[in-house]
Amino acid sequence: MVDIATRVWNHKWKIDPIVRSLIDTDFYKLLMCQSVFRNHRDTNVTFSLINRTRSIRLAELIDEGELREQLDHIRSLSLSRGESTWLRGNTFYGKRQMFTPEFMEWFENLRLPPYHLEKRDGQYELTFEGKWPEVMLWEIPALAVLMEMRSRAVLDDMGRFELQVLYARAMTRTWEKVERLRGTPGLRIADFGTRRRHSFLWQDWCVQAMLEGMGPAFTGTSNCLIAKNRDLEAIGTNAHELPMVYAALAETDAALAEAPYKVLADWHDEHEGNLRVILPDTYGTEGFLSRAPDWLAGWTGIRIDSGDPATGAETAIRWWQERGEDPRDKLVIFSDGLDADKILDLHARFSGRVRVSFGWGTMLTNDFKGLAGDALAPFSLVCKAIAAEGRPTVKLSDNPEKAMGPPSEIARYKRVFGVGPQDAIPVTV
Amino acid sequence: MVDIATRVWNHKWKIDPIVRSLIDTDFYKLLMCQSVFRNHRDTNVTFSLINRTRSIRLAELIDEGELREQLDHIRSLSLSRGESTWLRGNTFYGKRQMFTPEFMEWFENLRLPPYHLEKRDGQYELTFEGKWPEVMLWEIPALAVLMEMRSRAVLDDMGRFELQVLYARAMTRTWEKVERLRGTPGLRIADFGTRRRHSFLWQDWCVQAMLEGMGPAFTGTSNCLIAKNRDLEAIGTNAHELPMVYAALAETDAALAEAPYKVLADWHDEHEGNLRVILPDTYGTEGFLSRAPDWLAGWTGIRIDSGDPATGAETAIRWWQERGEDPRDKLVIFSDGLDADKILDLHARFSGRVRVSFGWGTMLTNDFKGLAGDALAPFSLVCKAIAAEGRPTVKLSDNPEKAMGPPSEIARYKRVFGVGPQDAIPVTV
Repeated sequence: MVDIATRVWNHKWKIDPIVRSLIDTDFYKLLMCQSVFRNHRDTNVTFSLINRTRSIRLAELIDEGELREQLDHIRSLSLSRGESTWLRGNTFYGKRQMFTPEFMEWFENLRLPPYHLEKRDGQYELTFEGKWPEVMLWEIPALAVLMEMRSRAVLDDMGRFELQVLYARAMTRTWEKVERLRGTPGLRIADFGTRRRHSFLWQDWCVQAMLEGMGPAFTGTSNCLIAKNRDLEAIGTNAHELPMVYAALAETDAALAEAPYKVLADWHDEHEGNLRVILPDTYGTEGFLSRAPDWLAGWTGIRIDSGDPATGAETAIRWWQERGEDPRDKLVIFSDGLDADKILDLHARFSGRVRVSFGWGTMLTNDFKGLAGDALAPFSLVCKAIAAEGRPTVKLSDNPEKAMGPPSEIARYKRVFGVGPQDAIPVTV
Repeated sequence: MVDIATRVWNHKWKIDPIVRSLIDTDFYKLLMCQSVFRNHRDTNVTFSLINRTRSIRLAELIDEGELREQLDHIRSLSLSRGESTWLRGNTFYGKRQMFTPEFMEWFENLRLPPYHLEKRDGQYELTFEGKWPEVMLWEIPALAVLMEMRSRAVLDDMGRFELQVLYARAMTRTWEKVERLRGTPGLRIADFGTRRRHSFLWQDWCVQAMLEGMGPAFTGTSNCLIAKNRDLEAIGTNAHELPMVYAALAETDAALAEAPYKVLADWHDEHEGNLRVILPDTYGTEGFLSRAPDWLAGWTGIRIDSGDPATGAETAIRWWQERGEDPRDKLVIFSDGLDADKILDLHARFSGRVRVSFGWGTMLTNDFKGLAGDALAPFSLVCKAIAAEGRPTVKLSDNPEKAMGPPSEIARYKRVFGVGPQDAIPVTV
């Protein structure tokens, strides 16, 4: 029986909105937003979209008018009552009232600020300028919109059964990964794939497939809307934007050297337990850890997000041992460029030596490589804080391919943070 | 939006019926039924289900009560007005009024006769006794019910996503065949997979995939219901049951030797053009053709349904040449144990020498091999006329593995039809 009402209702939509909720975003964005709201609510920050895969000419694939419609739709969104209730009433990481009444009141009244969109050289220049807690919330929906519009553009001229078979193949591929992973004792994996997803519905499918296939080894999703809808744990802690903006705001080299620790000192005041996870690579993991204050060694874990992941984990283990901590009590979260094989390798190598956990992104929610020729191959799109109070931000990371910022500032940061030669690793996702 | 009415309606079904229409059957069954109705309407015939793959113990997989419910449901079916209109009004093989008003009136009043069901040695003994035109219509629905109940039994303990991935894999596999086949100039393929289908919905999916993927190279389906619903050509001519019953009714060896030609003489009176297709293998192709009357060489084509298909086609070509016919005007329909590779091989070998056409069965509509371990591997289930007026029927075919009937009768038929040594070919589907 065709549901006529649904069909007629669907006729009324001017667009098929990609992002339909302000909590269709990563959980760590909201945690960081609350922290920023508390500590830097009036700081002016600029976020910008950066397509690291220049060969994919997004402005030729995606119609500007349609992109504006999607972005305008996001600006029309506000927190629904149910979403607000979930954020206020849910237990996150074992804690009630993770979000303060003051933050929630602000969030309930938030609309996303204006965006600035231009075409240049086959790419979109999409920037967001304004108060940090507001513009930072553009990152994930902006990425999700661009990613899904690219998918739609590629799928646009495929037939009905061709499409069904495309998804059949992608489902088969995802399920084969689930089958390869499941049954490995002690494995713990969360979905971190919102920003690079093929589409919202596809991410939602992948999450459900992980849930059925992996059982308790699937620990949750970074996506708040999917966590809410599917009654899952929302997963995430903090990201590079905090040290990047803190660093940009530093007036002196000495203040710059202290900035990454200031971030974690603020975080230390706000969070405990499994939320105390260090992201050490913004300006080089080695230097960050060797200069870190002792209280940081008491934190629960470290997230490895660039460079060779095994090297990063070995560095962390050595550091904990030097500071008199037992690594077996510590958590290592791998979250960079994972796929099933790499997950199994890293788990085999570190399981038992530390508590291992994985945040699986692009290759969970967007592995369509080869399924429509090369047209759906993964690519590397990010949306980053590029300036704070008019000063450029810098990221070095443990992979020079991921470095960003003006060359003179990169040189200064390398000097201040004592970053020596680094191994370049190609960035594909 | 959930369609509540649909959901509540679905609650009301006591069973999920597998066969829901009397025209969910092969088109040739209806053509033969009309012929039988005209020439032998009072002949008593027994049809019986035969599982040639003894290792699949159907009576242990399928609940007897549920099987009876499905068979009882089929007995409750009658031709709907729309189905009757389609049969009366449609053009089949370019001919209007393929079915006479007298036959249609009989068919509109038909309910399928009783069945007899017993369990023996892990198998079901399912037989149908009665007037030939009535019991013959049990063949396809009985097979479809057993096939789909076996599928359901295997799928019963699979999870929701496991199921979705199973179908994703099957869709991918089917589509890969479509992709391998399409683009081959002059290819003509029809769906002959009703009797061995995984399920009705799956056959319907495969037909639609062929339609989208192959375009005009997909010539239609043997399934009348799907042909009607999808506005396709209904495809089919005649089958072994005609010579088998005619032969069983023969009183003398001389009459027996003539029986297969009598079948085609009756058919000659009723049909012309592309419906004049010889099925020569019932009692050995070589002998059948060498003793055939000259008027038969004027027929349009030959269907190759057992033995080595290339040998069968070469035999047919030689025979046409001996009788002064140009094989390039003739049609060869391959319909035995086909899959994509075999189709391409045969097409490459015979295209241009004759008009080639394919009736693709089991491996189109039921290729789940290896998708649920071995549990869904194809198997060889048939439903055959085993007796007429109390006398056993015999089939020899061009493959001794497909022979059936009492040994003494097989020996007699071999003598009468001059069948020498035959090559055995394993029967898997």
